[in-house]
Amino acid sequence: MIFYFCSMQKIWNKRLQVGWDETNLNGKLSLTGLSLILQRAAVEHAEQLGFGYSEISKDNVSWVLFRLNIELVRLPEWKEKIRIQTWPREIIGLAAFRDFILLSEKGEVLCNASSEWLIIDLTSRRPQRMDRFKEMAHLNTATKALTYKPPPLNTKCDFTPLFNVTTRHSDIDLNGHTNARKYFDWLDDAIYQVHKEKEISFLQMNYLNECHLGEEITIEFCEEDKKTFRGLKKENGKTAFIAQVQFK
Amino acid sequence: MIFYFCSMQKIWNKRLQVGWDETNLNGKLSLTGLSLILQRAAVEHAEQLGFGYSEISKDNVSWVLFRLNIELVRLPEWKEKIRIQTWPREIIGLAAFRDFILLSEKGEVLCNASSEWLIIDLTSRRPQRMDRFKEMAHLNTATKALTYKPPPLNTKCDFTPLFNVTTRHSDIDLNGHTNARKYFDWLDDAIYQVHKEKEISFLQMNYLNECHLGEEITIEFCEEDKKTFRGLKKENGKTAFIAQVQFK
Repeated sequence: MIFYFCSMQKIWNKRLQVGWDETNLNGKLSLTGLSLILQRAAVEHAEQLGFGYSEISKDNVSWVLFRLNIELVRLPEWKEKIRIQTWPREIIGLAAFRDFILLSEKGEVLCNASSEWLIIDLTSRRPQRMDRFKEMAHLNTATKALTYKPPPLNTKCDFTPLFNVTTRHSDIDLNGHTNARKYFDWLDDAIYQVHKEKEISFLQMNYLNECHLGEEITIEFCEEDKKTFRGLKKENGKTAFIAQVQFK
Repeated sequence: MIFYFCSMQKIWNKRLQVGWDETNLNGKLSLTGLSLILQRAAVEHAEQLGFGYSEISKDNVSWVLFRLNIELVRLPEWKEKIRIQTWPREIIGLAAFRDFILLSEKGEVLCNASSEWLIIDLTSRRPQRMDRFKEMAHLNTATKALTYKPPPLNTKCDFTPLFNVTTRHSDIDLNGHTNARKYFDWLDDAIYQVHKEKEISFLQMNYLNECHLGEEITIEFCEEDKKTFRGLKKENGKTAFIAQVQFK
């Protein structure tokens, strides 16, 4: 037990190297690759702190990502050695906040990010109060990675369809829904279609509704600002995600 | 220079842990996750041996994967600690053979695999003789990971369409074509559509034609044997891949 507590890190620290499959045609870390680095760090750290999926799924609940805000200073290149730091920051209502900093080998800040997570019941799929399952608040670190406050989401514009996607077996994770990385594939493809290789300085991704196996989703963009993108479920018209980007 | 040679490993050895995003709904390593583990090991080892993309791309050529044969003993589970070993085995004509063994923490063999690679000219996209670029033969290790000889490919059957896919920005890697992992997504989705969670004992993937940005591909299966799958490019009718699986 003593070993267990000693080995816990309130701030997770991991050295990584940008992989071939995480790199775009331009040789830099892709948006999906970045989302995977953040997701893996969050999953591994929550597991290590004892409130990950392994622990809480015993109560038929699981973590789901609700929002990700990312400030992009510089995207690292293929084979570049990087370091990811993450920590749970605070719990407000039903949401748990987790922050991230991505650093170069020399300590240069590449990205700052903040995420919001919910605990959902695996049967009803409804968010649950966290204190019912695990005492987590004492593991928080109050430091904010992100100081820039992004503009409010422009949800009122007229959206124009770009392309359709269908979710398949390889998109679904242990939670029984499309993995969070997949929304980044769709967003990346939509941004590329409208803007080609334009450099992004800030990105907000809002995960609003789960997608399940075999669903068709229309990926759309806002013609007015060209910065807002969303995924709309064809069957019921619900918004799977809405995202907004700022360019350099 | 001395340090460089001392640090080279003729057999690449790396410890890994199965990640959340590499896991299927059943909690086991996905086919795509497995293909990524092999691809990453091959890329990293070739880089370390000095004949990776970084080195040979100076001559406007690159490695492309042509065939992957995988014997599946047991697929590891989410969070399971595993070990990957890989080595270049031999060069026959235009093809370089590279083998792999995936082991559990206790040394149990999980997968044996063999791969064939070509060096293509990045402009003409035609295969090139390897000895024009780099002396590699002395770095081979003759040991064969795979002893099972799979049955010949059943290419003569009537194929039936399962679904269509379009390649997008997030699928394309530094070589300017759909990354090898993507063919595994398509194969996994096709197998699931026909067989659901049936356990695979052997898998052959043949990469026959590159897919570029915006191509539409029809994923099909052979009704007669239900074990052969292919991807057909809509525009020109060329076969992107043909794969064959054996079940337990």
